[in-house]
Amino acid sequence: MLYNNGTEMPHWLAKRASLTPERIALICEGEEWTFRRLEEEAGRMARRLAGWGLKKGDRVVLLMGNGLHMVTLIHAVTRLGAVVVPLNTRLAPEEIAWQVEDVGARMWVVDEDHEPKAAATWRSFGTTAYTWEELTRFPEKEMELPSRLSLKDLHTIMYTSGTTGRPKGVMLTWGNHWWSAIASVLNLGLDPRDRWLASVPLFHMSGLSILMRSLIYGMTAVIHPAFDPAAANRSIRGEGVSIVSVVGTMLSRMLEDLGEKFYPDHFRCMLLGGGPAPKSLLERCKEKGVPVFQTYGMTETASQIVTLAPEDSLRKLGSAGKPLFPSELRIVKEGVDLPPGEAGEIVVRGPNVTGGYWKRPDATMEAIREGWLYTGDLGYLDEEGFLYVLDRRTDLIISGGENVYPAEVEAVLTAHPAVEEAGVTGRSHEVWGQVPIGFVRLKAGESITEEELLHYCGERLARYKVPIRIYFVSHLPKNASNKLLRRELLQLIPKEGKGGRDW
Amino acid sequence: MLYNNGTEMPHWLAKRASLTPERIALICEGEEWTFRRLEEEAGRMARRLAGWGLKKGDRVVLLMGNGLHMVTLIHAVTRLGAVVVPLNTRLAPEEIAWQVEDVGARMWVVDEDHEPKAAATWRSFGTTAYTWEELTRFPEKEMELPSRLSLKDLHTIMYTSGTTGRPKGVMLTWGNHWWSAIASVLNLGLDPRDRWLASVPLFHMSGLSILMRSLIYGMTAVIHPAFDPAAANRSIRGEGVSIVSVVGTMLSRMLEDLGEKFYPDHFRCMLLGGGPAPKSLLERCKEKGVPVFQTYGMTETASQIVTLAPEDSLRKLGSAGKPLFPSELRIVKEGVDLPPGEAGEIVVRGPNVTGGYWKRPDATMEAIREGWLYTGDLGYLDEEGFLYVLDRRTDLIISGGENVYPAEVEAVLTAHPAVEEAGVTGRSHEVWGQVPIGFVRLKAGESITEEELLHYCGERLARYKVPIRIYFVSHLPKNASNKLLRRELLQLIPKEGKGGRDW
Repeated sequence: MLYNNGTEMPHWLAKRASLTPERIALICEGEEWTFRRLEEEAGRMARRLAGWGLKKGDRVVLLMGNGLHMVTLIHAVTRLGAVVVPLNTRLAPEEIAWQVEDVGARMWVVDEDHEPKAAATWRSFGTTAYTWEELTRFPEKEMELPSRLSLKDLHTIMYTSGTTGRPKGVMLTWGNHWWSAIASVLNLGLDPRDRWLASVPLFHMSGLSILMRSLIYGMTAVIHPAFDPAAANRSIRGEGVSIVSVVGTMLSRMLEDLGEKFYPDHFRCMLLGGGPAPKSLLERCKEKGVPVFQTYGMTETASQIVTLAPEDSLRKLGSAGKPLFPSELRIVKEGVDLPPGEAGEIVVRGPNVTGGYWKRPDATMEAIREGWLYTGDLGYLDEEGFLYVLDRRTDLIISGGENVYPAEVEAVLTAHPAVEEAGVTGRSHEVWGQVPIGFVRLKAGESITEEELLHYCGERLARYKVPIRIYFVSHLPKNASNKLLRRELLQLIPKEGKGGRDW
Repeated sequence: MLYNNGTEMPHWLAKRASLTPERIALICEGEEWTFRRLEEEAGRMARRLAGWGLKKGDRVVLLMGNGLHMVTLIHAVTRLGAVVVPLNTRLAPEEIAWQVEDVGARMWVVDEDHEPKAAATWRSFGTTAYTWEELTRFPEKEMELPSRLSLKDLHTIMYTSGTTGRPKGVMLTWGNHWWSAIASVLNLGLDPRDRWLASVPLFHMSGLSILMRSLIYGMTAVIHPAFDPAAANRSIRGEGVSIVSVVGTMLSRMLEDLGEKFYPDHFRCMLLGGGPAPKSLLERCKEKGVPVFQTYGMTETASQIVTLAPEDSLRKLGSAGKPLFPSELRIVKEGVDLPPGEAGEIVVRGPNVTGGYWKRPDATMEAIREGWLYTGDLGYLDEEGFLYVLDRRTDLIISGGENVYPAEVEAVLTAHPAVEEAGVTGRSHEVWGQVPIGFVRLKAGESITEEELLHYCGERLARYKVPIRIYFVSHLPKNASNKLLRRELLQLIPKEGKGGRDW
């Protein structure tokens, strides 16, 4: 039978500008853009990029902070069917260089703030990085922009670190973004007056997904250049923001700034991701009447895949909820589905789940089996089917909402000529939730100071990945098959070091 | 690339009952059912139907009025993957018999009110019609109900009359219903407290689509046995109903009943379908602050495909709006797309559009070309792209929200042995919007009274299709190729007949 399953549809930006041209699409840098304006600006830039020669399928790396330029470019690049690759601006130059090369970027664009960092790496590429100003000098190509899109086409490649080796580029189609937005609206609802605050980075899924929802829902995205608790609270209290995406550390700083004041009635959702939140924080929110919805998701699921429903937000404090309407979830251990109460690996499926990793068929086959994504995260279901996340992947450290994979930091440490082997783990931290700390065993006869080693890491890793302390040890804890036991590392900290100076 | 496009997903009823078991799914016949209860009741009936032998793909005809039994059966039948065929209870026994036979029904179910009507026809079938009570005596089959569904599978066959010949069964997949519900939510929004009133029949798309949205959104459907303006107003004012689906005549009777009173703030949408509404009615709504959203849709589009957005509901009074987010629209005349302001045939496309008519490949190929549905309706777009519907299909009469196709009534009239030829057209009517009137030329030497002919029609046609008057004439207006000119029929009414007794 004929069935149009909706994989082809009107182009979101054009359609949205046609349906609700006068609605506010964006509030950013003191400006308000309607959907008509957004389409015009993105359209003009798309024609310039086409004038330069950008084509469908080309990858465009963006090394930019939140702002009108980044939003415009995300829509302009994808308007042409090219693929946007937003890089984490906190990465070290070497990390950036690696990702630009891995993705086979045809072009990359940096903003003023990140030009120096880009300059440190672009020497190694045939093509240079462009600034916004340079792009505006490209001639506009006379062309009709596409009026339709296919949900099967690639929209984004977003890098994420794994438990081993280099970061992997998560491939996200228009369809992944679509289904993520639809799953969210069926849980959180949609008020024509909704405004969703992105004070999280647009280069993360949590931020980018707000832009996608804005187009699909016809909803205003309020975009802050960076997270500032006072500014976030001002947007809620004075600018009509009704939903905010946060991680635990952001939320606790917002509550601190809020002090004795309260949020207005129109504020209806504090969407809390980035790993399990401390019970004390959730209870403070309950007391203040802050509507917290815990959520669980990752780049591979195009943001949320499990979120608490409104009616359960208080009753199931601490749970991430149930898999959203089009999604499914299992708890698996050694190939067997576990009953409620038993902890195992969280395995998810749904149309928002990535098809795989860029040019990594092996990693893709390892992570995605029969449509199920093996997240590597640990959790359990209660008797009613609510998910409780125990640990974000084995050994994963979440510092201020950023993922830090011990293996990646260990790889840098062991690359140093003086280091024989290294172990990295996380330790709880008042402001950032967790911070990485390192343990190294030096090669026989070598010597190096902690400062030298930290400096070495700082040149090769984003700041949030650099261990806050590095301890020199004579052995690392291993199991029988000689595998590093990261959870036992903390016991190696010398007595006087515990609770030491920086934390 | 791997891409899960969402054609397979968790079964809506099971998923909804798992996500929000305690939410109210239904308010009907003085009972409130949670989604958990709805799943249990539908599940029990599904196991009984399976016990009887019902299988995936079987067609089950329902000849029932709005109520808990009908809702339960719709969900029970489709829970097994069988196809629900809700018949218009106003049809005449002969019409019912024809549709039951055409669809190849494996089973049919009637409620008490419609048993006599069914009894008049079921004699001609190998299988009898069952009552609810008979179904409850079937043994429950021990089985696991399916936990997943495919959007490509058939959910409903709903008969609709056309400009020529017998009614056709519109095939609607789960996907058609899904995309219709999603398109609607992206326009109207969704409040977790929304309650949508179905006082329209569940055997029509307008009613059935409310049941579908209820499952997908987790929203309460308030179901009335039949339309009663006072009861509808009570549900809005006292029962939290926030959205109501109406046609023009229902709306004007609700306003009359409302009198000097007003609707409360939570009432946010009067979804007005069933053809162009009189400007005076829309203006009365504007004065009373009634939030009217005109919409355009049909069985073939699984309800709405064009609806006004909230911000345009007053500014564009009289327009049906713009095609919803996943949908497209053209105005076509003789194969050419017309510019704004020029009237032509309304042609639509989208994932909510039917794949075709049951066992009618010719009618399907005629109506659906390259994914575009040729509606036969006339309309034009204004400069901003808003649709104005001029006429529901050529010559279509809409009487109290029901479609009456002149050709169908003419076919019955000309089947009478005394009648040589017949013409039917609509005339405006204070209560019903329009009513059909007939014109017949008798065979030479034949004679028959108007009463006899009306009785003949009453036995073969639903009451609303029976002409309110039949005039005997000596000729019918034709064009050069001898085609009936229905629009000129009204001129044949004898002077003294105009504005006559019954209307």
